[in-house]
Amino acid sequence: MTRKLRMGMVGGGPGAFIGPVHKIAAEMGGKIELVAGAFAQTAERSRQAGEGFRIDPARAYGSYQDMLRAERARPDPIDFIVVATPNHLHLPVSLEALQAGFAVMSDKPATATYEEALVLQAAVETSAQPYALTHTYAGYGMVREARALCASGRLGAIRKVAVEYLQGWLSQPIERSGHKQAEWRSNPAFSGAGGCIGDIGTHAFHMVEYVAGIEVTQINATLRRVVPGRQLDDDCNAMLRFANGASGVLMASQVATGELNELRLRIYGELGSLDWRQQDPGRLTLRWADGPEQTYHGATRYLSEDAKAAFLLPPGHPEGVIEAFSVLYAEFAQTLIERQRDPASPLPPTLPGIRAAVRGMRFIERAIESDRQQAWVKF
Amino acid sequence: MTRKLRMGMVGGGPGAFIGPVHKIAAEMGGKIELVAGAFAQTAERSRQAGEGFRIDPARAYGSYQDMLRAERARPDPIDFIVVATPNHLHLPVSLEALQAGFAVMSDKPATATYEEALVLQAAVETSAQPYALTHTYAGYGMVREARALCASGRLGAIRKVAVEYLQGWLSQPIERSGHKQAEWRSNPAFSGAGGCIGDIGTHAFHMVEYVAGIEVTQINATLRRVVPGRQLDDDCNAMLRFANGASGVLMASQVATGELNELRLRIYGELGSLDWRQQDPGRLTLRWADGPEQTYHGATRYLSEDAKAAFLLPPGHPEGVIEAFSVLYAEFAQTLIERQRDPASPLPPTLPGIRAAVRGMRFIERAIESDRQQAWVKF
Amino acid sequence: MTRKLRMGMVGGGPGAFIGPVHKIAAEMGGKIELVAGAFAQTAERSRQAGEGFRIDPARAYGSYQDMLRAERARPDPIDFIVVATPNHLHLPVSLEALQAGFAVMSDKPATATYEEALVLQAAVETSAQPYALTHTYAGYGMVREARALCASGRLGAIRKVAVEYLQGWLSQPIERSGHKQAEWRSNPAFSGAGGCIGDIGTHAFHMVEYVAGIEVTQINATLRRVVPGRQLDDDCNAMLRFANGASGVLMASQVATGELNELRLRIYGELGSLDWRQQDPGRLTLRWADGPEQTYHGATRYLSEDAKAAFLLPPGHPEGVIEAFSVLYAEFAQTLIERQRDPASPLPPTLPGIRAAVRGMRFIERAIESDRQQAWVKF
Amino acid sequence: MTRKLRMGMVGGGPGAFIGPVHKIAAEMGGKIELVAGAFAQTAERSRQAGEGFRIDPARAYGSYQDMLRAERARPDPIDFIVVATPNHLHLPVSLEALQAGFAVMSDKPATATYEEALVLQAAVETSAQPYALTHTYAGYGMVREARALCASGRLGAIRKVAVEYLQGWLSQPIERSGHKQAEWRSNPAFSGAGGCIGDIGTHAFHMVEYVAGIEVTQINATLRRVVPGRQLDDDCNAMLRFANGASGVLMASQVATGELNELRLRIYGELGSLDWRQQDPGRLTLRWADGPEQTYHGATRYLSEDAKAAFLLPPGHPEGVIEAFSVLYAEFAQTLIERQRDPASPLPPTLPGIRAAVRGMRFIERAIESDRQQAWVKF
Repeated sequence: MTRKLRMGMVGGGPGAFIGPVHKIAAEMGGKIELVAGAFAQTAERSRQAGEGFRIDPARAYGSYQDMLRAERARPDPIDFIVVATPNHLHLPVSLEALQAGFAVMSDKPATATYEEALVLQAAVETSAQPYALTHTYAGYGMVREARALCASGRLGAIRKVAVEYLQGWLSQPIERSGHKQAEWRSNPAFSGAGGCIGDIGTHAFHMVEYVAGIEVTQINATLRRVVPGRQLDDDCNAMLRFANGASGVLMASQVATGELNELRLRIYGELGSLDWRQQDPGRLTLRWADGPEQTYHGATRYLSEDAKAAFLLPPGHPEGVIEAFSVLYAEFAQTLIERQRDPASPLPPTLPGIRAAVRGMRFIERAIESDRQQAWVKF
Repeated sequence: MTRKLRMGMVGGGPGAFIGPVHKIAAEMGGKIELVAGAFAQTAERSRQAGEGFRIDPARAYGSYQDMLRAERARPDPIDFIVVATPNHLHLPVSLEALQAGFAVMSDKPATATYEEALVLQAAVETSAQPYALTHTYAGYGMVREARALCASGRLGAIRKVAVEYLQGWLSQPIERSGHKQAEWRSNPAFSGAGGCIGDIGTHAFHMVEYVAGIEVTQINATLRRVVPGRQLDDDCNAMLRFANGASGVLMASQVATGELNELRLRIYGELGSLDWRQQDPGRLTLRWADGPEQTYHGATRYLSEDAKAAFLLPPGHPEGVIEAFSVLYAEFAQTLIERQRDPASPLPPTLPGIRAAVRGMRFIERAIESDRQQAWVKF
Repeated sequence: MTRKLRMGMVGGGPGAFIGPVHKIAAEMGGKIELVAGAFAQTAERSRQAGEGFRIDPARAYGSYQDMLRAERARPDPIDFIVVATPNHLHLPVSLEALQAGFAVMSDKPATATYEEALVLQAAVETSAQPYALTHTYAGYGMVREARALCASGRLGAIRKVAVEYLQGWLSQPIERSGHKQAEWRSNPAFSGAGGCIGDIGTHAFHMVEYVAGIEVTQINATLRRVVPGRQLDDDCNAMLRFANGASGVLMASQVATGELNELRLRIYGELGSLDWRQQDPGRLTLRWADGPEQTYHGATRYLSEDAKAAFLLPPGHPEGVIEAFSVLYAEFAQTLIERQRDPASPLPPTLPGIRAAVRGMRFIERAIESDRQQAWVKF
Repeated sequence: MTRKLRMGMVGGGPGAFIGPVHKIAAEMGGKIELVAGAFAQTAERSRQAGEGFRIDPARAYGSYQDMLRAERARPDPIDFIVVATPNHLHLPVSLEALQAGFAVMSDKPATATYEEALVLQAAVETSAQPYALTHTYAGYGMVREARALCASGRLGAIRKVAVEYLQGWLSQPIERSGHKQAEWRSNPAFSGAGGCIGDIGTHAFHMVEYVAGIEVTQINATLRRVVPGRQLDDDCNAMLRFANGASGVLMASQVATGELNELRLRIYGELGSLDWRQQDPGRLTLRWADGPEQTYHGATRYLSEDAKAAFLLPPGHPEGVIEAFSVLYAEFAQTLIERQRDPASPLPPTLPGIRAAVRGMRFIERAIESDRQQAWVKF
């Protein structure tokens, strides 16, 4: 029995739904085990959280620095950390972990600012440890099918992209009445420069480049603070231009009242187009210049190998966002295992890494700059 | 038995699917009859078309001028004309008809340019005859429900609008291989200044102001000629700003490969949002800040009076675009009938008229100017 | 200009939504004109209805007998009648019309009982005039695509059929509070032997044999009177057996609370299956043993010729039940025109005629008998 | 840190997708750990499977008897077993486990025959250990919302039920070409008396009684062996009668070509109806006698407490069948924990137990008997 990889979590404690999700997703593949964590900002609250996760109380630390230090000294240290804190801590935690010799799996956005992302990039490039970013939706099988389809050329040259990520949960100023998730997300000290654009706009942006395989070169964005008194943007519209001449539209909003989590990606090529919705993740719709519309279903035999590998269950058995998440963790675990044999083995191209991290932060920075100028800006 | 209103058609002859549609829609309500036409550019071809429509051969004219002249001289002249020509003729035909004392029902866009629209506006304002514009989709019952809903305030202040009108039929240069509809639409001499923006962008634009009841004040548009060699735009992305502070996105494309006729409107208010798709016209989806999503179905008792009046059949019996069209004709007929009693009676507010005509042409002109400047422009 | 075919209507007067629908559908193709009618049971009320239809007051008759007699004597008599009365009159009206030398287009069910259907069949078979049945849904283009698909063998041998027709409008005893449509439908004196089974069950049954092209040979039905005090069935479940060994399920209900007009047909073959819903009539879904699901859209180039002929508009422009209805009328008109040249020309196989009429009445009779025996009965 | 409950698996080894699913679902809630198993019929293959599950090799046993015996002797024995074998072993494994003092979580159908189910029932009723049945779909949050809704009376008296479970994967005789899942399912020696009716029909049947809260009292079923040479039914249609007077239709098929895993439940009450589909599990559609259709979405605040408790993630984040499964395991774990305090604490009513087990086997037996008689039979 090969041992499981040992994970330490930073953040993800009381009130954060993302902590348990990380644990479940990481452990789902059977190769990772949560064994340590700096879940909260006091030793006491961290220990309580650790109890909920049923980890050894001795490994529930009061700070990530304590965790890194103590784990390095153990005979059975963690293999990697997952960064599940508010954004302002992403850089320091990731940096110190890499420097301490631990691999890093980080929540997005990668850092609080673009400048920080460049610092992180330098660190990752000189580290022996891999760095990956939890663009969770990239783990969905049908997103991988979409990606494979674009790469295959079957849609022809890509001409137009429409991506939207619409939520309505911030349509009222709930950050002022004790909603913890809303609080830090709407506070620049914790969230960084971007509000909605950073929290979900980055997902939308990543999805486009990840699936279409083309690069954004210019952006013209409008960021708004729709709810009075809000310090960060809660709504964004943007037009995009791509290196290959394609154009695009990106909408992200957290004040789209009534929307739950509507991430939708459409890509139009010369020969056909694709359409995927996160809230119906097991289907991928293809439309063709002159033939019937097709719906691809998850886990079926006609999918590409990349897509098939991302499903656990037979067709018709819905898989959700946790399963998508687990796909990223499985790839990360596989990378760590391969590194034991070959320290130069790269992340698989399907797993978002430091390049996606820097692109995402550049996107936020460029969107804000475009909004400031009320004009097109180059990427 | 009151007599039926008599309609004369200009255009709509061989190769144009819109001619028969006008006739069917106009006659569906039982108050209008197609009795004359200048269907084509020669007397011979016009007569052939007239035969298809089973009208008196003597009333199938070789030109609209002939028709206006001859009909004025008859004891039983037409009451109004419908303008179903390519765009470049919309102004002269409408103008001369109004001057000859005939009411006008015109296809959109109202004219070839914004300047022409102002000329038309002056003529309409001094004419005793009504002028209406066939923004067909405005005749759908669920569009009227959406309009009533916005007006009622139930969605709260409107914050964001997303409208899209996507087609794929021009994704290849079919105008060069004899496709008549594609030919004139991609030729500025017949289509006017706008390509896609004029042909379908105007529908999308109209839908927004018609339903949301708020005015666009600024636009930032990107028009492209995606298919090489095309003279007019075939794809458009735009960001919008509204007088009330709301923002919006408008996409229109005729190179969105695989899309048939995807007109979709979403309006987000502070309290709720609505979602309507032309390809599923009998449903209207409402989403609320904190309550179940609702789907309103056509012809049901819980609809507003305006909406109910627009359905012919009981619930669950699909009605299509022709029935929507007939609603506009019914309102136009009603206006003509009321004018006989009261020459000052206005168009009903639900029937697009000269104001919508001018707004639509302004939209085209502003979109083109914004694209030229690559910047926001005022409306 | 060839003259239009002249139609006389029996029934369809005040309070019946079906009268105007018949008129619109008949006239939509431009080959038929409503010119006469016995719309109601008194001359006065018939004349009022005729005025609404803008027909010559002299041709609005107080009884169908008057109409048949008077029209025969005219130089420009009607060519055919449409029977839009409650069911109990279907036989006498159809019979007398045929005997008077008029063609007949009849609403379903064809008669009040199976015995009557046999009488009608004998009359039709010896008449020089054609008889057709308005199984409206058979006029939908996608139903014809489904029919062509089954006939083509692409689904393989048909193994299983599921058809359902669910409405909820009779879930309360509204026939006791003045709802005219509900009144006659729930009264055996007007409706005949079947309630729900006759009113909508026959549509479902017809759809199965029409599309699948296989014959029902046995039925095991449960009819219920769910609303207390109702004299006729308002709910039906049935199992079916087919001549080719396939089996099926048929559900029809008018007490399926909340359903509007949910007619859905699924046919499962050895190689693939199809799925069509009346409330979304422009789409046909195909599922295959091992390949992506397909959605066929109305009016597209890849449809069969039969299906394409049933669409008026380009793809993406919804057509509804009236357009479907008009397809039946167009085929009926075409038959009448061909009969002028060749008195032996048959109805096209796509237009339901006397055979479908008899099958439908047999279905009602067999369902009732099966329910009485609580057992399988042969057809 | 309270210890985790220890689970031992019987079956679920090589080639069975259900083994890993059990492990993931059981461990997802953080209270259960897979520590032992008799995964296959030889010690060698069981050890290999155990390695895949990363359990102690000493606890991968060659037979369930070995496991029960060895675990009883350990200081840290398993707390319960999960039975994931083909059906013919369900009874002996469950019985012996209960007798050995272990709790049992069993796959459905509970046993191979109805007689066996009665034996099991007697054992469960006299055992100190709880017994639960993995009707996985009962763990979906929206199924619980549906159940709560029926119990609340908001739909009014239930009048009609339509349930279907359609798959197409057995539309060809794949059991003859080495498909392991198909092999045992189509072999009565392993599957028991029912084929399709036992494998998925029981799910459909359970869903009806679980959600509607009414009991089936009569059934009229047709079972077929559609694929030539098959020994067990692969297709079933049935009519149902309920104690409260409602009627129903149940369809189950594994030869519904092109269907993946289409489990759908519709329940019609006097005041409204509900509609749920397993392949879109996070939505529940409600239709009302006279008001807009409603769609309830998973994890939202307006759901009942029972439903809310079954979601891990915020609204708009899809959860799938594994998460549903984990809900059952969480309830089972909770029961075991409560039993430590109070040996009499019952299973929660939302967790299927021995009663559902016996009902399911009775359903199979009655369906087969009805088919044999070609008649209605009592339950």
